[in-house]
Amino acid sequence: MSVSGLLTDFYELTMMQGYFTTGNDPVVSFDMFYRTQPFTNGYTIFAGLEDALEGIQSMSFSADDLAFLRSTGRFTEGFLSYLQDYSFSGSVYAMDEGTIVFPGEPLIRIEAPLIEAQLIESFLLNTINFQSLIATKTSRVYHASGEGTILEFGLRRAQGRDGAHSASRAAFIGGASSTSNTLAAKELSIPVSGTMAHSWVMAFPSELESFRKFAEIYPDHCILLIDTYNTLGSGITNAITVGLELKESGRSIGVRIDSGDLSYLSREVRQRLDAAGLEDAIIAVSNDLNEEIIMALVADGVPIDSWGVGTHLVTGGAQSSMNGVYKLAAAMGSTGVMEPTMKVSNNYEKTTNPGVKQVYRFFDKDHNALGDLIALSDEQIITGKDYTLYHPMIDNDFYSIKVSSYQEIRPLLSCKLLNGRRTEVRQPLVAIQSRVKDQLQYFHRSYRRLVNPHIYKVSLSRDLKDLKQALLAEYREQQESLLP
Amino acid sequence: MSVSGLLTDFYELTMMQGYFTTGNDPVVSFDMFYRTQPFTNGYTIFAGLEDALEGIQSMSFSADDLAFLRSTGRFTEGFLSYLQDYSFSGSVYAMDEGTIVFPGEPLIRIEAPLIEAQLIESFLLNTINFQSLIATKTSRVYHASGEGTILEFGLRRAQGRDGAHSASRAAFIGGASSTSNTLAAKELSIPVSGTMAHSWVMAFPSELESFRKFAEIYPDHCILLIDTYNTLGSGITNAITVGLELKESGRSIGVRIDSGDLSYLSREVRQRLDAAGLEDAIIAVSNDLNEEIIMALVADGVPIDSWGVGTHLVTGGAQSSMNGVYKLAAAMGSTGVMEPTMKVSNNYEKTTNPGVKQVYRFFDKDHNALGDLIALSDEQIITGKDYTLYHPMIDNDFYSIKVSSYQEIRPLLSCKLLNGRRTEVRQPLVAIQSRVKDQLQYFHRSYRRLVNPHIYKVSLSRDLKDLKQALLAEYREQQESLLP
Repeated sequence: MSVSGLLTDFYELTMMQGYFTTGNDPVVSFDMFYRTQPFTNGYTIFAGLEDALEGIQSMSFSADDLAFLRSTGRFTEGFLSYLQDYSFSGSVYAMDEGTIVFPGEPLIRIEAPLIEAQLIESFLLNTINFQSLIATKTSRVYHASGEGTILEFGLRRAQGRDGAHSASRAAFIGGASSTSNTLAAKELSIPVSGTMAHSWVMAFPSELESFRKFAEIYPDHCILLIDTYNTLGSGITNAITVGLELKESGRSIGVRIDSGDLSYLSREVRQRLDAAGLEDAIIAVSNDLNEEIIMALVADGVPIDSWGVGTHLVTGGAQSSMNGVYKLAAAMGSTGVMEPTMKVSNNYEKTTNPGVKQVYRFFDKDHNALGDLIALSDEQIITGKDYTLYHPMIDNDFYSIKVSSYQEIRPLLSCKLLNGRRTEVRQPLVAIQSRVKDQLQYFHRSYRRLVNPHIYKVSLSRDLKDLKQALLAEYREQQESLLP
Repeated sequence: MSVSGLLTDFYELTMMQGYFTTGNDPVVSFDMFYRTQPFTNGYTIFAGLEDALEGIQSMSFSADDLAFLRSTGRFTEGFLSYLQDYSFSGSVYAMDEGTIVFPGEPLIRIEAPLIEAQLIESFLLNTINFQSLIATKTSRVYHASGEGTILEFGLRRAQGRDGAHSASRAAFIGGASSTSNTLAAKELSIPVSGTMAHSWVMAFPSELESFRKFAEIYPDHCILLIDTYNTLGSGITNAITVGLELKESGRSIGVRIDSGDLSYLSREVRQRLDAAGLEDAIIAVSNDLNEEIIMALVADGVPIDSWGVGTHLVTGGAQSSMNGVYKLAAAMGSTGVMEPTMKVSNNYEKTTNPGVKQVYRFFDKDHNALGDLIALSDEQIITGKDYTLYHPMIDNDFYSIKVSSYQEIRPLLSCKLLNGRRTEVRQPLVAIQSRVKDQLQYFHRSYRRLVNPHIYKVSLSRDLKDLKQALLAEYREQQESLLP
């Protein structure tokens, strides 16, 4: 995947030229983080990293790109020739893709010359925000189904071609078993699924003939869509006829129901199949499903084996974006030391955490996650000590983790790109999907509850809290001095 | 734009092989239409057609694509070699891109061999659904602002790279003035906009210095972001200082406010600017805007000149997909005549309209749109006659249009691809944007109201209504005969 340097908000380019012209181009540290849980879920799945890294590494400006910039009349030849030779020379520290993450934590830390750090912002956010949204949505759907079989069906309702492609990738990370998007399946090595639509059934003189033909051609992948005319009338009757014919060669059918009340219909269909001796026949359903509908059906004990989910899975449904942001946290001063900086907002929730930071996760002896700590990267956060962890916003709100109550402290950010070069090979998608499943079992089930989940604690270290307060005090003083 | 033939739901390919194998490949007519207005808007803007046509024409299978299909074990060499030579040979009838459209009307009619018509379904829906959604959303935002200046800012929150690209295109069609996505601006010839972010202001020792440097480099495009520290404190004060300096060379600044109460702040800022003699300075705002917020601010009489809209514009916000579908309407019978067909659903709203159809729009002598009529394509719908128009679902609900009350009847579907070839050159985007603005002024303002708009009438002709009833009766008889 090669990305044009123009895949960026135009103001990044005008600012870049400004830094270039003024020579104001220190090494800086930017944090990418998000502020609130999508879907009010108890956690978010960090997704999109491998695509983001590949894109950041490949970003460059073609002669065409430069000609376009020249045509806007805003850029000097000096800056354009800088862009001509541009390649990313900075470092990227990030959580492993598939990590379970929480609001306020730096998921990615960029250390690069200011000009470069600015260029990649829009692309980075575009990639991480969307894929994390969809991986998290799929995780909700997957858990609603009781970790069942989720077929991602969203191509026709996705937001553009790449909206579909990225969604197929992220949905797989979040727990989907397969995609219907053939191109995504090929490019991402995801299992592909799909059999027939209503138009197949309508294209033959009779439903029975359409089923028979399909069984003849695909005896090993024969999922029959039974609701074109009358699910409990001709549909299941004809499916059973074909199912019994296939059974003679030791094969099984499946049926799919795409309309009507899925609880009522699936029970009736299961009974009819079982009564006919087709206990092996699976029941798949679809029809504008989301996690709430699936949760209600599963709670109702429906005999459904797989779930085709489209629109809601690939767009996020009513929540169609994640609010990830990218904020300056430190800049190299004239003395060669990184100096912390922060964005102060009247809205305290939007005031950022200053400095070059690391995130640590505490685990008990059974590997259960206890809480996360955001600290300055030069602090020594190691086992064998008691820790006091501070609420990120509320004053005088803290709790302690005694040395006896935890077993392991794991730093979550590691170096993924060092001076523009990958430090490890690209992770296969199945490994990322496994990481999600593996990590989630070590979060208490109360964090995985779909509605009103337990809030997982993310805290600041004492040093970081003190630094933030000191910078805020300094800032208020400056503001006072500016008053007339 | 070249599209892989694999950009399709897998079931299309399994069905295609089925039709290929059984020789069941008649010429068919498929309709693309949608069922409900996105955002409960009074109209929808039909967008994405030019991209869809280009994609349909370019769809083909590379050696790689074929190797992938072979690897699934489901396809015969005979079918794969058919795909190797595949190119679309059918015809596409469609409304002009940018047409104002309504639920139930065929927006696109495909006439092609069944195999080909099936292949393009997913890609066609993906393109039209998303771009029509975003063009319509933008039209709402544009009208909420009083046909003001809308800057599309959505790249970082869009659903993937193409989610961003397609959204920039569709937003422009719907009324946006520019995009921040530099690559989209280049590829689509849309004006690009953007100046500075908070990080620019923070990258200098003082806000004033950051403003001065920017004005030095971009004296003609100097929009200063004034809320990094304190909008009504240092922000506006420093902006005025730089504004007065620029004024000496006959230039104007602008300011952007990205947080806080935009009504209160914009009024105060306007007052400060005017008092300083900077009446020319424009005020731009941003911060998670959507049409409801903009409508409330405009109703409140705010002095705001331009609106930066991101997330909601490019994703649709809480409604993130459009429910366009693609349904078989007729198939060539053994006698060489197109025979109407329909999908019957227990949910009458989902029962489709049969037959090869055309859509007509009636206009009065002032060019105002009076209502739309869906008719069979071989009916003579011409001026000089009275017409009775039937409700698409409710029995015995109809109204008349007398010859004296209308002046013109315009057919909306025209041939865009004939036997695989374009019948006209690709429409430039500005022409499509103009079409939208032009058509909208001939719909009564009650249809354009953002909340609870007047419902525009879409009706069936008597012949189409009769055909639908006859097919339904026939179908019910068949179902009766199948009962045990």
